[in-house]
Amino acid sequence: MQGQMMTRPLSIIDILTFARDAFGGTEIVSARVEGDIHRQTYAETHARVAGLARGLVKLGVAPGDRIATLAWNGHRHLELYYAISGIGAVCHTLNPRLPADQMRYIIDHAEDEILFLDPTFVPLIENIRDQLPGSLRFVIMAGADNLPENSLNAPAYEDILEGGGDFDWPEFDENTASGLCYTSGTTGVPKGTLYSHRSTVLHAMMAGVSFQNCLNPRSKVLPVVPLFHVNAWGLPHAAPLTGAGIVFPGPNLDGASLWNLMDSEKVWSAWGVPTVWTNLLAEIRKRGGKPAGFGDVVIGGSAAPRGMIEEFENMGVSVCHAWGMTEMSPIGTQGALPPPLADLPLSERIDLKVKQGRRTFGVEMKIVDGDGNGLPHDGVSAGELHVRGNCVASGYFRNPEAGEKAIDAEGWFATGDIASIDDRGFLAIADRAKDMIKSGGEWISSLEIEDAVLAHPSIAQCAVIAVPHEKWGERPLLVAVCPGDRPSKREIIDFIAPKFAKWQLPDDVVFADELPLTATGKVSKLTLRRVHGGHVQPDA
Amino acid sequence: MQGQMMTRPLSIIDILTFARDAFGGTEIVSARVEGDIHRQTYAETHARVAGLARGLVKLGVAPGDRIATLAWNGHRHLELYYAISGIGAVCHTLNPRLPADQMRYIIDHAEDEILFLDPTFVPLIENIRDQLPGSLRFVIMAGADNLPENSLNAPAYEDILEGGGDFDWPEFDENTASGLCYTSGTTGVPKGTLYSHRSTVLHAMMAGVSFQNCLNPRSKVLPVVPLFHVNAWGLPHAAPLTGAGIVFPGPNLDGASLWNLMDSEKVWSAWGVPTVWTNLLAEIRKRGGKPAGFGDVVIGGSAAPRGMIEEFENMGVSVCHAWGMTEMSPIGTQGALPPPLADLPLSERIDLKVKQGRRTFGVEMKIVDGDGNGLPHDGVSAGELHVRGNCVASGYFRNPEAGEKAIDAEGWFATGDIASIDDRGFLAIADRAKDMIKSGGEWISSLEIEDAVLAHPSIAQCAVIAVPHEKWGERPLLVAVCPGDRPSKREIIDFIAPKFAKWQLPDDVVFADELPLTATGKVSKLTLRRVHGGHVQPDA
Repeated sequence: MQGQMMTRPLSIIDILTFARDAFGGTEIVSARVEGDIHRQTYAETHARVAGLARGLVKLGVAPGDRIATLAWNGHRHLELYYAISGIGAVCHTLNPRLPADQMRYIIDHAEDEILFLDPTFVPLIENIRDQLPGSLRFVIMAGADNLPENSLNAPAYEDILEGGGDFDWPEFDENTASGLCYTSGTTGVPKGTLYSHRSTVLHAMMAGVSFQNCLNPRSKVLPVVPLFHVNAWGLPHAAPLTGAGIVFPGPNLDGASLWNLMDSEKVWSAWGVPTVWTNLLAEIRKRGGKPAGFGDVVIGGSAAPRGMIEEFENMGVSVCHAWGMTEMSPIGTQGALPPPLADLPLSERIDLKVKQGRRTFGVEMKIVDGDGNGLPHDGVSAGELHVRGNCVASGYFRNPEAGEKAIDAEGWFATGDIASIDDRGFLAIADRAKDMIKSGGEWISSLEIEDAVLAHPSIAQCAVIAVPHEKWGERPLLVAVCPGDRPSKREIIDFIAPKFAKWQLPDDVVFADELPLTATGKVSKLTLRRVHGGHVQPDA
Repeated sequence: MQGQMMTRPLSIIDILTFARDAFGGTEIVSARVEGDIHRQTYAETHARVAGLARGLVKLGVAPGDRIATLAWNGHRHLELYYAISGIGAVCHTLNPRLPADQMRYIIDHAEDEILFLDPTFVPLIENIRDQLPGSLRFVIMAGADNLPENSLNAPAYEDILEGGGDFDWPEFDENTASGLCYTSGTTGVPKGTLYSHRSTVLHAMMAGVSFQNCLNPRSKVLPVVPLFHVNAWGLPHAAPLTGAGIVFPGPNLDGASLWNLMDSEKVWSAWGVPTVWTNLLAEIRKRGGKPAGFGDVVIGGSAAPRGMIEEFENMGVSVCHAWGMTEMSPIGTQGALPPPLADLPLSERIDLKVKQGRRTFGVEMKIVDGDGNGLPHDGVSAGELHVRGNCVASGYFRNPEAGEKAIDAEGWFATGDIASIDDRGFLAIADRAKDMIKSGGEWISSLEIEDAVLAHPSIAQCAVIAVPHEKWGERPLLVAVCPGDRPSKREIIDFIAPKFAKWQLPDDVVFADELPLTATGKVSKLTLRRVHGGHVQPDA
């Protein structure tokens, strides 16, 4: 029997309209490409989004059109999220760190109609202009005053806004596409996740319920995690829904710039990947204190080392370790510790916080062995993590083969992560499946070794990769970055030895000046394997 | 263009499964009909719900069947909410305060298969047994030890639980009916609102986002508002979702019983109607202090008088004034004050808190004049409140005529409440449309007069009703309850005169020992109008 309740379409613009009504005076602060600190309220943002929607319609944007963005974190980028989806078009965020050939591929594949870009990225696009579709139009995200000279025949963003009152937002099916984000596949072509209004609104509500410590009307949250990838972990929608203020850092993400912005804006909660926090922590040490008002950090993208978590917690900054994927909107798990876990001694809390947290409402998780059999949630058994839920991709944009490969008949999405889940539900990502090292038939987790190595005071960054080995199949090799005194290989191995079985230890250490990064800021193990794949190790 | 995200059905049992996983050790405490204080965790509750689901299937319950409950607030009643909806059947809550003829009508109309009842209500049902369908079966919500002698041939609840592991919860459309609640219409026959899984899950998420002050893992919340009506304002779903503990008060809702239970269980937040808080406040005055740990009260059902709000706020209990309807799942608005409103001086905060709060996410509201034209949100213009949203009824169960009358072509539900909305979005309910007094073509709000009268120290309760008048059409009459010294009529009118125009003042005062109540605990103005409709007033 069907219920007799209205079924109104979940719609992204309703979030911003709600923020206007409930938290109209709360500010979005943007450290802009222009160099200024810009402030506007949620009410002002809503009005500008209405003006932008009118501008988009005037530019001929139709429902379903893909409209691309290439921009840092700032208010105009957020406005595009809402205006594009609000008129039924698709906001396609481009990652400026992608190699030119991938960017071209993605723009082609998505058939973008218009590209909105920050002034910063004009040279980048001018360089590949002749390889892009001739029909692609451009808008530069600046006022007419700040419009750089360019060969793109691009108007200024501020000039396309058509002012005056609210927009008559169209109503459409809640499963209508709203956003598009490609993963920078380390193998194969990039694959696009096509978000919907339903998935996005449910994700925002779920985040609002899960992240109460940072998503509430008293909080100001700073997304270092980019709007140009994985929806800035959902903050563009969850912050307005819950009344949290937003501080957008713009292009300057070094420790000093972040410290200064967080301090002057009294940012309570900052969200980003570990490499960002390595730099901020160095700045905090240098200055002898944390930014004023800073009390909460959400870390995801890759595993947060234990030392990083301890350092934050010891200065009174609560760490929430989260995990997700582009294909999950992106949040899958988060590490908030409710009572009684919150009342454990610090060391036990940190034991939990080094794990990736627990599933959020609406996310189903299971771990399976190579034959697809479910494994127990005992904290030891490790298998591939499979997920399911309203915020999980059911396929890839214009790539049915990739979708069929990733999603099984029961609708489970195979994440490619090897993980365990303990009896309290905490997820521990052992490794990306492709980064595991198979030595003599046994698996070795590169992440666990890296985490132990990073506790060594001389080592700033490191990566463990598999190199082929005649006898064992694969053996682990450690690549380490030591900015100051370089310890001996023996010293490093001895340092971590107590935590591992002897056969799990790297056989050799290679020192590097820096580690290669992917476009999303993660260490590129693919590149490292290319460079060091022929490394001959001493006998295991 | 459609997005490519999974569309998994929103399902109520997923909330309790999530609570098991995320807040498994958090307790549901029940002051039971048996007289004991019972404790069980969310994990234990989930296991019992699985056992109950197996028991229901064994009793022959099929998807779509209506299963009625007649019970106080306790863990078994909550278990029924989840088990019945979890197997695709409909949990139909009956209000024990209904007159026998209405209860019989409702059970007939709903075609309930089984009635689960507290031992307390066995005599009530035995009295009307022969007027109920012969096929109706009964289960008494007790253990075999506590099973009262009865003529209902009813097994004990604890005996139908079939233990052992989780239940294989069926998957069904998210719009499947899950719950049924009849309004005790003061005119006409009772009308049933048929909730769905989708409306219920969205309502829980919305409440979780809106009521962070009381719905969080650190909070214990006590619903005085009954599970047998309007879903206890959504707490059965919102509390497990957010990890709040629940303290169920059972049958004893007097001030002393509540004070004791709240004190011993350290209840942070209590939810209920004003009459309950009148009694609790009297108890607090008598004891010289509030229950330990008490810091938050949610008041709805009818308007909270200003004096009540001031008294709570002055003792450090934050008041959240809310408004809703059975047909709205029920929450429509809530009065949390985010910054900068939270930082206003107390008197200005109380000016806001006497209003009914602001719309929650997902609820659309407008006020319209008699011709259906929208009125401005200026805090002055008053018209009938219309609402729309995923948690609003689209019709009434087996009563299409009533649905067509209440819902217009654009899908707006006419609430029957006369209200204004101010420029900050705060709703102020002036009156039920049918309780407004039309004097000489002008409307007088009975609620505004009542609120002013209640500030008089000698008056415990009051109601203002319309009585027919030859010249003016209708004129207001005040019915007052004065437990101690009775002030003169003149004194009462003079007391409120400064706040009103002369023509808005009641022409006369009638004293009563008590006010008649409806089955949901509100003052029955219908009864008062019947009794006093012929009252001859002195000239206005």
